Amino acid sequence: MAIHIDTDRFLADLHELRKIGAYRTGVHRPTYSKEDMESRRWLMEKMRELGLEASIDGIGNVYGRHTGAGPHLLAGSHIETQSHAGWLDGALGVVAALALARAGLPVDVAAFADEEGHFEGGFLGSKSIIGMLSEEEIDRSRGRTTGQMLREALAEAGLAGLPRMQIEKGRHKGFFELHIEQGTQLESQGLRVGVVTGIVAIWQYRIVFTGQQDHAGGTTMAERRDAGLSAVRLLAAIDQEFPRICGPRSVWTAGKIALEPGAPSIIPGRAEILFQFRDLEMPTLELMHETLLRLVAESNRREKCPAVLSQMSRAIPALCDPNMMACLEQAAQAHAPGKWQAMPSGAGHDAQYLARLMPSAMLFTPSIGGISHHWAEDTSDEDLALNVRVLGDAAARFLAN
Amino acid sequence: MAIHIDTDRFLADLHELRKIGAYRTGVHRPTYSKEDMESRRWLMEKMRELGLEASIDGIGNVYGRHTGAGPHLLAGSHIETQSHAGWLDGALGVVAALALARAGLPVDVAAFADEEGHFEGGFLGSKSIIGMLSEEEIDRSRGRTTGQMLREALAEAGLAGLPRMQIEKGRHKGFFELHIEQGTQLESQGLRVGVVTGIVAIWQYRIVFTGQQDHAGGTTMAERRDAGLSAVRLLAAIDQEFPRICGPRSVWTAGKIALEPGAPSIIPGRAEILFQFRDLEMPTLELMHETLLRLVAESNRREKCPAVLSQMSRAIPALCDPNMMACLEQAAQAHAPGKWQAMPSGAGHDAQYLARLMPSAMLFTPSIGGISHHWAEDTSDEDLALNVRVLGDAAARFLAN
Repeated sequence: MAIHIDTDRFLADLHELRKIGAYRTGVHRPTYSKEDMESRRWLMEKMRELGLEASIDGIGNVYGRHTGAGPHLLAGSHIETQSHAGWLDGALGVVAALALARAGLPVDVAAFADEEGHFEGGFLGSKSIIGMLSEEEIDRSRGRTTGQMLREALAEAGLAGLPRMQIEKGRHKGFFELHIEQGTQLESQGLRVGVVTGIVAIWQYRIVFTGQQDHAGGTTMAERRDAGLSAVRLLAAIDQEFPRICGPRSVWTAGKIALEPGAPSIIPGRAEILFQFRDLEMPTLELMHETLLRLVAESNRREKCPAVLSQMSRAIPALCDPNMMACLEQAAQAHAPGKWQAMPSGAGHDAQYLARLMPSAMLFTPSIGGISHHWAEDTSDEDLALNVRVLGDAAARFLAN
Repeated sequence: MAIHIDTDRFLADLHELRKIGAYRTGVHRPTYSKEDMESRRWLMEKMRELGLEASIDGIGNVYGRHTGAGPHLLAGSHIETQSHAGWLDGALGVVAALALARAGLPVDVAAFADEEGHFEGGFLGSKSIIGMLSEEEIDRSRGRTTGQMLREALAEAGLAGLPRMQIEKGRHKGFFELHIEQGTQLESQGLRVGVVTGIVAIWQYRIVFTGQQDHAGGTTMAERRDAGLSAVRLLAAIDQEFPRICGPRSVWTAGKIALEPGAPSIIPGRAEILFQFRDLEMPTLELMHETLLRLVAESNRREKCPAVLSQMSRAIPALCDPNMMACLEQAAQAHAPGKWQAMPSGAGHDAQYLARLMPSAMLFTPSIGGISHHWAEDTSDEDLALNVRVLGDAAARFLAN
């Protein structure tokens, strides 16, 4: 059961990958960008050095297949980043998977494309590899900030026409993903390892208000149809109502509010909100969904600017596999006695999709200051090294039991 | 007193100018853009054809000086447009001034730069020509949507180093500006001419909230500092409070709300609001200003994301000259008996700055559907022709009295 993880090599790999798309102390590798594709080629080269069969598929998934005998594990995460974001979010789980393979474990290494959701739908890679992404969804999807069609982005990245790989049924005993916490729960309690109990589901919405673009001086308050004002009133209603109906760990976020044309002297003719909420419990998710529908209906009865709500994604919460969790807990207790806890994941991860096909589990490292999706995101080298050792130990225990 | 306005020529000029930067049925000529500078050269050529001495100055003002004997009038407006906006907003007053000069009236024709406020401050041209725009203000000003420094934009437009012209004291008996109403008050009463009584002042603000950019899943509702949410709460408070303290004709508008980074799964770390209000009465403006200060102070006591309020412009309401108004009313009654009214202007206009140096007055044409600052803005050729005749008649009456 004793395996040796080369943590120096692991950290060296992480710091090498960090240079691709470097931005301040973080990185900028949006999905299918030049930098993102460079990082995927870098990963395939690393896989080949380790004797894995490396390939890339039609959605950008990079896969390193172990050529020896099974039973096999699958390990990995994603390699693209949010815009001007952190160096570890995603990259950590991929490079940790490389470290497991280097230690001689029978591990297939995967980097799933667009976990970060630069394109509509999000989780394109993990959805695709489990057979949940249709060609029609690919046809429809556009870049959330660029508006570029996904098909066009795939073609520019040189991926058009490549087949999309599927998980080989029965090949894997389970999927492990190491990730940063992206919160302060570990740090604030002085803990160094988080064994994840489950992954919340994210339900994502777009709400578009249509008003009348007019001059801000010539149109009286009574006459105007200000799409921005209707949007503000809905968001204020959500701010009032959601705390009354949410669960203890629910979160909700309006990450984008865009007014058109967005000029000081023009009444906005259109307003768009990107709104999401997250929870581990389906009944809570359903209640938040119903509340949102009700608030939009109330807005449409009250306001002069009609709102159209569209649900962009509706995931199912994923619970982690109890056997894999037990192995992670034993390994955590061995390497960091008293310095770990079991905890839910507030963020979505590729593991939530892999969990539909095989037992899956996740391990969290602390995030300094809880900072995430920002270039200042960081974790100490000591915590990174500790957690890859815990992961390797747990993987060996799980293979052995 | 009887003068002849060539309305066919006037309409032909308007339709010719409409082709520069044409966008659908409107135009796109942002200040100092290639299209804007082309329209300024077009105007100078038209001025020269009429025997006016044409020049452009260091802020982009185009001026056509009448070479004959006085007393002189000044007439004009602006020639740039809002983005993807109407063909008549500004252009109408400039081309009408050409028509007056063509009819033999002793008129200097002016197109004042950036009335539309593509750059911070706004009204750059009319402020500059009355001596109200300092070099320091030019140094500081940036494009409101582009962020480009004004100095850089001037240099790219070939205007760097040109002197800035000043109104010659005592030369003009008054300033006339013909403009579209940008509202529905004329149309809804079946009227064709509006004699403006005064121009509201616009007070423009920027409000910036600073929060903490974080992952939308890993950060609990209690921990997060969501700059977008603080911005929404302030706007909701304004929506509650302003109707209680405003005047009967006050208007207020949040034309822009920008969240950074503006992605679905990231808690906004920064939110910026562009907010303005307008009124004809100084006490009402002062009360709205004090109310805004109070609401921002309340926000800063209540919210975790501090707000910084900066006032970008603070104009003074301008009342129109009674003698000039009387001439406009007589002319309106002569050409459109019973089809005109006196009315305030809810929009800001160059005339409000010229009014500080000389008697000034404005005339409004109807706007179809009240649409303004949008490419669908329009006025019938009949109403355009009628109003330029009223303007010419009034100018002749005013020169004669």
